[in-house]
Amino acid sequence: MLGNTFGRAFACTTFGESHGGGVGVVIDGCPAGIKIDLAKVQTALARRRPGQSEFTSPRDEADLVECLSGLDRGVSLGTPIALLVRNKDIKPEHYADLTQTYRPSHADYTYEAKYGVRAASGGGRASARETIGRVAAGAIAEQVMATLCPTIEVVAWVDRVKDIAATSVDMTSVTRALVDADPLRCPDAKARKAMAELIRKTRDAGDSVGGVIAGVVRGCPPGIGEPVFDKLEAELARAMMSLPASKGFEVGLGFAATELFGSEHNDAFTIRKGRVRTVTNRSGGIQGGISNGEDIWFRVAFKPVATIFKAQDSVAKISATKSARGKSAAPSLKRVKMQPAKGRHDPCVLPRAVPMVEAMALLTICEHLLRNAIYRR
Amino acid sequence: MLGNTFGRAFACTTFGESHGGGVGVVIDGCPAGIKIDLAKVQTALARRRPGQSEFTSPRDEADLVECLSGLDRGVSLGTPIALLVRNKDIKPEHYADLTQTYRPSHADYTYEAKYGVRAASGGGRASARETIGRVAAGAIAEQVMATLCPTIEVVAWVDRVKDIAATSVDMTSVTRALVDADPLRCPDAKARKAMAELIRKTRDAGDSVGGVIAGVVRGCPPGIGEPVFDKLEAELARAMMSLPASKGFEVGLGFAATELFGSEHNDAFTIRKGRVRTVTNRSGGIQGGISNGEDIWFRVAFKPVATIFKAQDSVAKISATKSARGKSAAPSLKRVKMQPAKGRHDPCVLPRAVPMVEAMALLTICEHLLRNAIYRR
Amino acid sequence: MLGNTFGRAFACTTFGESHGGGVGVVIDGCPAGIKIDLAKVQTALARRRPGQSEFTSPRDEADLVECLSGLDRGVSLGTPIALLVRNKDIKPEHYADLTQTYRPSHADYTYEAKYGVRAASGGGRASARETIGRVAAGAIAEQVMATLCPTIEVVAWVDRVKDIAATSVDMTSVTRALVDADPLRCPDAKARKAMAELIRKTRDAGDSVGGVIAGVVRGCPPGIGEPVFDKLEAELARAMMSLPASKGFEVGLGFAATELFGSEHNDAFTIRKGRVRTVTNRSGGIQGGISNGEDIWFRVAFKPVATIFKAQDSVAKISATKSARGKSAAPSLKRVKMQPAKGRHDPCVLPRAVPMVEAMALLTICEHLLRNAIYRR
Amino acid sequence: MLGNTFGRAFACTTFGESHGGGVGVVIDGCPAGIKIDLAKVQTALARRRPGQSEFTSPRDEADLVECLSGLDRGVSLGTPIALLVRNKDIKPEHYADLTQTYRPSHADYTYEAKYGVRAASGGGRASARETIGRVAAGAIAEQVMATLCPTIEVVAWVDRVKDIAATSVDMTSVTRALVDADPLRCPDAKARKAMAELIRKTRDAGDSVGGVIAGVVRGCPPGIGEPVFDKLEAELARAMMSLPASKGFEVGLGFAATELFGSEHNDAFTIRKGRVRTVTNRSGGIQGGISNGEDIWFRVAFKPVATIFKAQDSVAKISATKSARGKSAAPSLKRVKMQPAKGRHDPCVLPRAVPMVEAMALLTICEHLLRNAIYRR
Repeated sequence: MLGNTFGRAFACTTFGESHGGGVGVVIDGCPAGIKIDLAKVQTALARRRPGQSEFTSPRDEADLVECLSGLDRGVSLGTPIALLVRNKDIKPEHYADLTQTYRPSHADYTYEAKYGVRAASGGGRASARETIGRVAAGAIAEQVMATLCPTIEVVAWVDRVKDIAATSVDMTSVTRALVDADPLRCPDAKARKAMAELIRKTRDAGDSVGGVIAGVVRGCPPGIGEPVFDKLEAELARAMMSLPASKGFEVGLGFAATELFGSEHNDAFTIRKGRVRTVTNRSGGIQGGISNGEDIWFRVAFKPVATIFKAQDSVAKISATKSARGKSAAPSLKRVKMQPAKGRHDPCVLPRAVPMVEAMALLTICEHLLRNAIYRR
Repeated sequence: MLGNTFGRAFACTTFGESHGGGVGVVIDGCPAGIKIDLAKVQTALARRRPGQSEFTSPRDEADLVECLSGLDRGVSLGTPIALLVRNKDIKPEHYADLTQTYRPSHADYTYEAKYGVRAASGGGRASARETIGRVAAGAIAEQVMATLCPTIEVVAWVDRVKDIAATSVDMTSVTRALVDADPLRCPDAKARKAMAELIRKTRDAGDSVGGVIAGVVRGCPPGIGEPVFDKLEAELARAMMSLPASKGFEVGLGFAATELFGSEHNDAFTIRKGRVRTVTNRSGGIQGGISNGEDIWFRVAFKPVATIFKAQDSVAKISATKSARGKSAAPSLKRVKMQPAKGRHDPCVLPRAVPMVEAMALLTICEHLLRNAIYRR
Repeated sequence: MLGNTFGRAFACTTFGESHGGGVGVVIDGCPAGIKIDLAKVQTALARRRPGQSEFTSPRDEADLVECLSGLDRGVSLGTPIALLVRNKDIKPEHYADLTQTYRPSHADYTYEAKYGVRAASGGGRASARETIGRVAAGAIAEQVMATLCPTIEVVAWVDRVKDIAATSVDMTSVTRALVDADPLRCPDAKARKAMAELIRKTRDAGDSVGGVIAGVVRGCPPGIGEPVFDKLEAELARAMMSLPASKGFEVGLGFAATELFGSEHNDAFTIRKGRVRTVTNRSGGIQGGISNGEDIWFRVAFKPVATIFKAQDSVAKISATKSARGKSAAPSLKRVKMQPAKGRHDPCVLPRAVPMVEAMALLTICEHLLRNAIYRR
Repeated sequence: MLGNTFGRAFACTTFGESHGGGVGVVIDGCPAGIKIDLAKVQTALARRRPGQSEFTSPRDEADLVECLSGLDRGVSLGTPIALLVRNKDIKPEHYADLTQTYRPSHADYTYEAKYGVRAASGGGRASARETIGRVAAGAIAEQVMATLCPTIEVVAWVDRVKDIAATSVDMTSVTRALVDADPLRCPDAKARKAMAELIRKTRDAGDSVGGVIAGVVRGCPPGIGEPVFDKLEAELARAMMSLPASKGFEVGLGFAATELFGSEHNDAFTIRKGRVRTVTNRSGGIQGGISNGEDIWFRVAFKPVATIFKAQDSVAKISATKSARGKSAAPSLKRVKMQPAKGRHDPCVLPRAVPMVEAMALLTICEHLLRNAIYRR
């Protein structure tokens, strides 16, 4: 229960399936008196939209956001901010043959195992379309922080596609503008070229690739994050691992840290401009679950997209389950050869995952910035 | 706020610093009528205790657990189960010279940045001693699940120490007994020998090493986990990344998944014994945030221990902060050469981290098993 | 924070001001596979709508509900159910002269004290229009319970208007149909006639009256409610006292219980149809915070409506506060004589409060029915 | 689930049965750097202890509080504060004959209906002993507020015993010292005398009486409380109605407000010392769920104690339920004549309820004072 809410101080509840009236978010806990520009929310949504380039699915979704509540003449009221994006009319018959077949590595089977029913068409709640609410809320969080703590900035980028890694990105200075200069959202020109070629080939082969998104939070003051279970790295891990297709998370040197001796990994303290700083930043800006004022940097692994244009072995139900609870007998199962996917689908979600990762980082930092207000006055 | 509670259905609130009256946990939400054997809690605590072998700090802490409430003649009442482990008398003067110096890559500085005050001695709340409450709660969770869903079993082991990796462990069959057969808790005899040698050398050099813990949840029924923000992998990630010294988490193939094509990574469905199963299990038993009935397997990265027996550059306060809030001026800072640590400290926490990882997995699965009860009847 | 969510298992987050895009609710935690008829939601909303009779404000609000998510072909998916009711176009200039004056016993001043800003027009979030989300969610909860525990029924009615009390209502048998047979919603014909006369006179005098709503939950199984802080009576009290204009709550004999001796108040146990029952029901069906299987009956006090058609002393700001936070100087204040309210307003909210009280009782019982699923299997 | 936690910002989780190791509370969210004097906690516990006077049960419980964590040299660390009060050795055989009989208007039957098991002796979790954790936490909250908002003061007193009402108490000035000047805790000398006589007579007759506690929060700044579901009056209602034996709650004029016209009930605004104030305070210091800076005053109804020294009709189980879940058949029931209670029991809990009511008010106001920190900076 309550798996659809992120945050306790800046609590974002998303709603909506890929098909139905729409998707959106209700934000409870936005401080009052903050200037909120809905155009910035629209810009953020445009960055996650499919069809931005040859690498992303051209399904046309205008994704116009409407604010239903919580703002008055561009200023937050302290009341819930409800944001709605309508779904386009879709043709459920395109999905008709999927309602009985479990697509490999999709959530079809697990949703049905959990709920006994699932949406008749598309990915339902497991669709990437669910992230619209997150991205919209992230764009509100960013404006809240621009007022409360203007030093904070969050940037993410494509760090690796399959085995092609960016090597020249300087995380202390990379900007969102630089990232967005190319639709691939990898600010390493050489790697980007190789990535583009790989994605084209993969698409032509009807296959898909995954990769890694890197992100950084700069300008976060020391003291943010809660000890023990709500450590800042734990909250970021949960945030990122809740994104569709994510399979791994690391902060600072992460898994690479395990290959160093303690004397190689420790970040010595020093003094700069009268403040406590670290000489190195292998910890990723967090110690004991609390920010130390250095850059918070992390990486998120995304598996290759499950939808591919190749035949796959799968299982289908022979008889339908009745939608009413508990009445119908368990369906019979049969092995099937699932036909290649139809329509257009992203061969690589990485470019579109960049704004999603940024949104989750923004929501996490905003949440803990607000929580922190309780302790220090 | 509320950073000390894990779970909403099986809510565990831990308390206690390394020094003070004691550490413990209050579990709210344990179902009534479950047979609980406190001896099993004591056994779990013994596994995380320092001084079990030459590789772990010999600080003697008996860690006897007392149950204050919630049980009656060995059966849970449905009321909060409070468990307490007393701290031994400690001599705060051992830590006297640390109260003004920020130990590199410890939480001294960040706690002070957050709270303005910190415990006078030892690691306070950031000490690994805090995990006693988690391990005790995990041992209760395991007994709850033994009643509610006896197929579930959780096993973790040392998978890598620095660059020495176990290669022969079969996660589908490895048992806790096998893991515990050696104090290093790595069930790969060859790797274990090399690890032991490395840890000895590291200890002799006054240094420390980290590594990777692997874990598996077997026998988890399909349908466990909540979509969107409380996906099972997100909850596991948060659980593991909340452990002291953890820096990374991955589920299934994790970061390695990003190097495969979708056609290589997808887990085809098949039918075994009349049930939907997957042919491979690269996803790690979770799809769309919900368990699919296959083994849930994951890895956690632990950095090398921050306490080392070498001199380090650091920063100390010249004047003490006053403990009352907000009155005193900010302390002056000075650069210092911190002397090597005294006493005995683990050169490698990995063996002791095994029961902690198991505890967090048990708490996560138990939480979601209980949450799931709401949906299906 | 999070003051806009009711419930943890059946979590209803309402949103929306009296003016703006609309009002609504997101329900997270509705079990899957439940048949949900939106027409029943519409019917519930019609019962709370103004303009149903001569006693309620004729402001025309069609209040058509739209379901944005969570249902598929009339069956709940287990995902958030988002319900939206659009606001009609309103003319903010009608409220222009109120933006600087604090209406006595309204929330104008306190909202501004809390948030520094408030909605430019109407009651904003404090408007009774906010209850639309509650009533809509209550109508979903009622359908959930109709599936999970069909014995449960909730009925509320007007028990008193000012000093005119209903005396002939049998709470063990009164039905919603009987209550709705007259727009005053008092199923005591004699009292109703006197109430109607009093309300007419009050309206003609430009004044307002309050009263008491009585409610009963019948058919609730024993064992519902959580000990200590979430006792069923505490949860009902919070639910009812969160309704606009409520000032008191009592369960069972309530305040009257304090005038009895223990020997007069205790409910002796007996056996009926093989089940433990009580001979009397002075406790109101709850003991130790948990339902005992008898009728749960309670009363809620509603103050007279604050909006009256008489001049009142009040205070107004001379200079406007700037909407951006913290920048502007505190406004100067002046005493003012506030002119009588314009337009049409209810002289008595009691009839419209009946479905609100029912909704809050439905949400409370549904919440605890679902929570209980965790403990007993 | 989670029914044992009060508050989200200042979250107090109580634990403990009347018999077993002890009772206590863990407070998560106490701000750091607050001076905390444990002697004040001990004083508060002494006020709720039985055996303070001839009117309260002389059961000897020293109730010495121990702080297990969260404080260092008298200053809060920002970490959980765990407080423990040991139970005295008790003789379960005194309760042996009660384990099969459901005491009328006690929680024996409902706990068993909910959990299937219940504590073998005494009231278990439903015992008034559970309130020790509340009173201890309230004493911490009071010290937190003494630092953060020193104007706030909370006083409660016995307002009525059965039908004998205090009439001369001035809630704008009454002090805790005045209340405590007499063990009956009613600061109206004349009423007090009559109350004492009634309680003596009641005790001699083996019966019990209830009554009403009045309380006031003075010096609360405007802006405290959250709109909609967490309105300050709703939170107070929940807090008070969660106390054992409470049956009703009202704020301001409460039920009496329903007998006034709006023109009689509205609180006109005025200006005093440059601040917005109300001329009257019929609303009880809260409008729209948010404090307006006036005194918050309220009343709580307590039923007569259920334990009486008279024979009563009841029901007993013939065969015991097995403690393991679900295995045993439902027990047979028989009607029994329950013998009069043995030992000493309070004939009137009102004097001891005074510190409990104060504790719940303190916890509620502290919670919302901390929550409010998020919105205004």
